[in-house]
Amino acid sequence: MVVNGKYTHGGDIYSRDIKLDFSANVNPFGTPEKVRAAIAEAACDLSVYPDPYCGPLREKLAGKLAIGAQDIICGNGAAELIYQFAAALKPRKTLLPVPSFSDYEEALSAAGCTPEFYYLKRENGFEVTRDVTGTVDADTDLIMLCSPNNPTGRSVEKEILLEILERCRETGTWLFLDECFIELTDEDRAFSLTPYPKENDRVFLLRAFTKAYGMAGARLGYGVCRNAGMLSAMCAVSQPWNVSSLAQAAGLAALDCPEWPEKARRLVKDEKRYLTDELKRLGVSVLSGDANYLMLSGEPGLYDALLDKGILIRSCANYHGLAEGDVRIAVRTHEENEALIRAIEEIKNA
Amino acid sequence: MVVNGKYTHGGDIYSRDIKLDFSANVNPFGTPEKVRAAIAEAACDLSVYPDPYCGPLREKLAGKLAIGAQDIICGNGAAELIYQFAAALKPRKTLLPVPSFSDYEEALSAAGCTPEFYYLKRENGFEVTRDVTGTVDADTDLIMLCSPNNPTGRSVEKEILLEILERCRETGTWLFLDECFIELTDEDRAFSLTPYPKENDRVFLLRAFTKAYGMAGARLGYGVCRNAGMLSAMCAVSQPWNVSSLAQAAGLAALDCPEWPEKARRLVKDEKRYLTDELKRLGVSVLSGDANYLMLSGEPGLYDALLDKGILIRSCANYHGLAEGDVRIAVRTHEENEALIRAIEEIKNA
Repeated sequence: MVVNGKYTHGGDIYSRDIKLDFSANVNPFGTPEKVRAAIAEAACDLSVYPDPYCGPLREKLAGKLAIGAQDIICGNGAAELIYQFAAALKPRKTLLPVPSFSDYEEALSAAGCTPEFYYLKRENGFEVTRDVTGTVDADTDLIMLCSPNNPTGRSVEKEILLEILERCRETGTWLFLDECFIELTDEDRAFSLTPYPKENDRVFLLRAFTKAYGMAGARLGYGVCRNAGMLSAMCAVSQPWNVSSLAQAAGLAALDCPEWPEKARRLVKDEKRYLTDELKRLGVSVLSGDANYLMLSGEPGLYDALLDKGILIRSCANYHGLAEGDVRIAVRTHEENEALIRAIEEIKNA
Repeated sequence: MVVNGKYTHGGDIYSRDIKLDFSANVNPFGTPEKVRAAIAEAACDLSVYPDPYCGPLREKLAGKLAIGAQDIICGNGAAELIYQFAAALKPRKTLLPVPSFSDYEEALSAAGCTPEFYYLKRENGFEVTRDVTGTVDADTDLIMLCSPNNPTGRSVEKEILLEILERCRETGTWLFLDECFIELTDEDRAFSLTPYPKENDRVFLLRAFTKAYGMAGARLGYGVCRNAGMLSAMCAVSQPWNVSSLAQAAGLAALDCPEWPEKARRLVKDEKRYLTDELKRLGVSVLSGDANYLMLSGEPGLYDALLDKGILIRSCANYHGLAEGDVRIAVRTHEENEALIRAIEEIKNA
């Protein structure tokens, strides 16, 4: 939590009066009814401590991913696993292609580590290119990638990702790959390393229930990793009961709703086209992205102007490599997206 | 969570077939209906990230404790706050009176610190005596106390606690005081430092909803501390959304049920007398304790024999300073306590 500091992420609907939230990238359909019911049921028996092994949840995930449950770790949201990973590895040299999710840097810093930034180029649409592979050397303990990336929405191309994976194997470098948005990503662009590369046990894949199942408030993420020593070390830096009974019940119920992210994925694809066309019509520069959000550029006044109308978007000014006027919008339902376009049109015409 | 390690706490009803759980020390009445209803309601809107400031919850706690909300930190259960505190302070020299809750040592170890144990004496009923004050010197960065202590149930006497507090002020030592059981403790023995000592900002008081409101599964604890730097440092080692929306809603509802722990406190007092009398009748050695659990000694076969009958108690053999045959039982409802006594009587007569 944040006691005396400043909160710098999306989703802060608590400090202001917000009517529409485009700042958090979650499933536009919200939370499945089955998940809500499972939580209400689990709430009846809260005097019991949560299962410290997350047994049934890991078994069910293992079945879905066709891997062994011993290679799965659950966390109090994917975010906690980032902090646990950094604290367990304490890497000396970390390569961080940016712009990307700021909690990688925060988690490394909490573990006493300072990453080296690799600035992805605006002229390449912030794509991870072959050049990144070349910067991984024998001294590199860790490279942290997010695909699709946050906030750009760009996936790492399959060919490049496999090349980086191979390079990491050669140099003994850990590859931390955040796939938290992959279930809401355009199907032909959703290249995943899950289950996992069998020949390399220095790979950590991060996944979440947050985005795909609209479960941000429940806190549930998981990691896939073949390295038993790493998973034990990650557990050792945290309490045994970090995943609540409510989150475990929610996760089990969510896995019974595979149609939920699928439905959202289709909506997102259509709505992304609608938003892109409309924004272009209004003269807004849109970065083409693969995930359930879009990055816009060159709009310095947009964040405040929308906030005045009760619409929250994500200012990206505090991302490394981005600037004032870079913003991110979530792809929401058609009605909400229309309202956003209407608001931007009013601002442009004012 | 626990992936490849061994779980060493109470409450593990997941690995075996358990009919009655006396291993976890929570409110025998379970979870208040208001809390369950609040969670079910909060589950309707899970696509929103939790409030990273825990704003309304901290305000309400502050009102109840008559302190400022800026001096309160919330955590994913009290256990998380122990790990955050250790990671933020990284003490060189820590004094740990034992036996006590094992997560203090685990959390210190995760932060790279090795505590010095002060062995409380069995012949004194494991009481914290004046001798402890004398061991705090200018090199001592931290002393961690639990009152009432887990698993002994002994409170630190008011006079001794104030003496330790004063000694810590003189030596610049942090006092970490775990008061998680205080709301279920005999009223005349429930001496608390909360709100907090105004003249000393190196005091951290740990509190939980877990025990008093039967909320172990929801994960919610809090700390009270006047040191803004410490609270910021604790926040920095964790993600911003560590306290779920469900836990925040549950906590707000629990604070509307002050009668819930009061009712349990009265039951516990009566039932502790019943259990003590019956156990003594059966020749079992009972340590007189102030909290909602009792420590028994000299019963090496009892844990396994009860487990055979589907009753789980807490073996204390893995606590520093305790031995095979030291066990802890929670004080439950009269029906459950009767069943426990019946089972022990059968075992003794077999």
